[in-house]
Amino acid sequence: MHPIIANVSKHIRLSTEEQAYFLAMLQAKSLKKKQILLREGEICKSSAFVISGCLRAYTIDHNGFEHILQFAPKDWWIADMYSLITQQPATLSIDAVETTEILLLPRTAQEQLFVEVPAFERFFRIITEKALVTARRRVLDTLSLTAQQRYENFCKQYPTLIYTLPQKQIASFIGVTPEFLSKMRKELLRSK
Amino acid sequence: MHPIIANVSKHIRLSTEEQAYFLAMLQAKSLKKKQILLREGEICKSSAFVISGCLRAYTIDHNGFEHILQFAPKDWWIADMYSLITQQPATLSIDAVETTEILLLPRTAQEQLFVEVPAFERFFRIITEKALVTARRRVLDTLSLTAQQRYENFCKQYPTLIYTLPQKQIASFIGVTPEFLSKMRKELLRSK
Repeated sequence: MHPIIANVSKHIRLSTEEQAYFLAMLQAKSLKKKQILLREGEICKSSAFVISGCLRAYTIDHNGFEHILQFAPKDWWIADMYSLITQQPATLSIDAVETTEILLLPRTAQEQLFVEVPAFERFFRIITEKALVTARRRVLDTLSLTAQQRYENFCKQYPTLIYTLPQKQIASFIGVTPEFLSKMRKELLRSK
Repeated sequence: MHPIIANVSKHIRLSTEEQAYFLAMLQAKSLKKKQILLREGEICKSSAFVISGCLRAYTIDHNGFEHILQFAPKDWWIADMYSLITQQPATLSIDAVETTEILLLPRTAQEQLFVEVPAFERFFRIITEKALVTARRRVLDTLSLTAQQRYENFCKQYPTLIYTLPQKQIASFIGVTPEFLSKMRKELLRSK
């Protein structure tokens, strides 16, 4: 089964015709490491589904510090949802952490999909609910947890990324320096 | 038009029968100021729609500090989405900031609604997308903005609450002390 059909089939059932109709809407794209998919200020026109590799969404603050909002490893969806639904300039940039293969679903095609195959309303309602849970968890983590608790939550949320992602990226996501992350990991290993 | 039908009609069209079917699922409830709708650790069984008044979702950290995740004034929906979709214990508490009238939509009724009136998949997909935008904006605000910028964003997000909500609640949402908020507001007024 095509990986994106396997992903969709976790939540809805599609006929062979509906699968073909959906697959025909998608645009395959390869990104090299550090290649930018969406730049802050541009209009986000598509959602991306990751076939292999890993994307990340981030912003750079007025002091030049990078803040990572989200990683999207294999089998995840990613977009600047604000820009996608309002068609206003993106507040995020999205780039590739490593060589990454994606499928793009343009918003215009997605709107058509909702009309032609209403089961996709259900699919995107469910995955958006899950994304909302993750985003709200992230708000509370940022407000109320210690760096060590944030790291432990990162490990739960992205089990496939702990050993593959550069330490610098994990540190940026958690909001600590790479040196502090390294010290914390050593202490965690010692205490286990 | 019933306020919740007006809210739903922003995104989908319903027949008179569908409206009646939906309204019959809802349970009206009145909450006094500070009355708790959901307590951290309980299972969240319903989404709440606010008819009048204001709810808030918050958590209390291991140091006893309260962190407000969201306010829900009139015409907003609120739930502990994590608990609602997984039926695991809530990580949030929800209570009333003032006397509040709500309508509860039980998750079981909502699941039935999705089957009987699929247009509701669309409605909840759209409002969940908007909630996701707000939650992600909040993550980035918390990570990258100054207290003054966070206050300005609060004013944009909740224009009806700036003058009605206790200062203490706004300060808790922004992540500053009430004294700091008061000082910042005076400086903002002077500079305008």
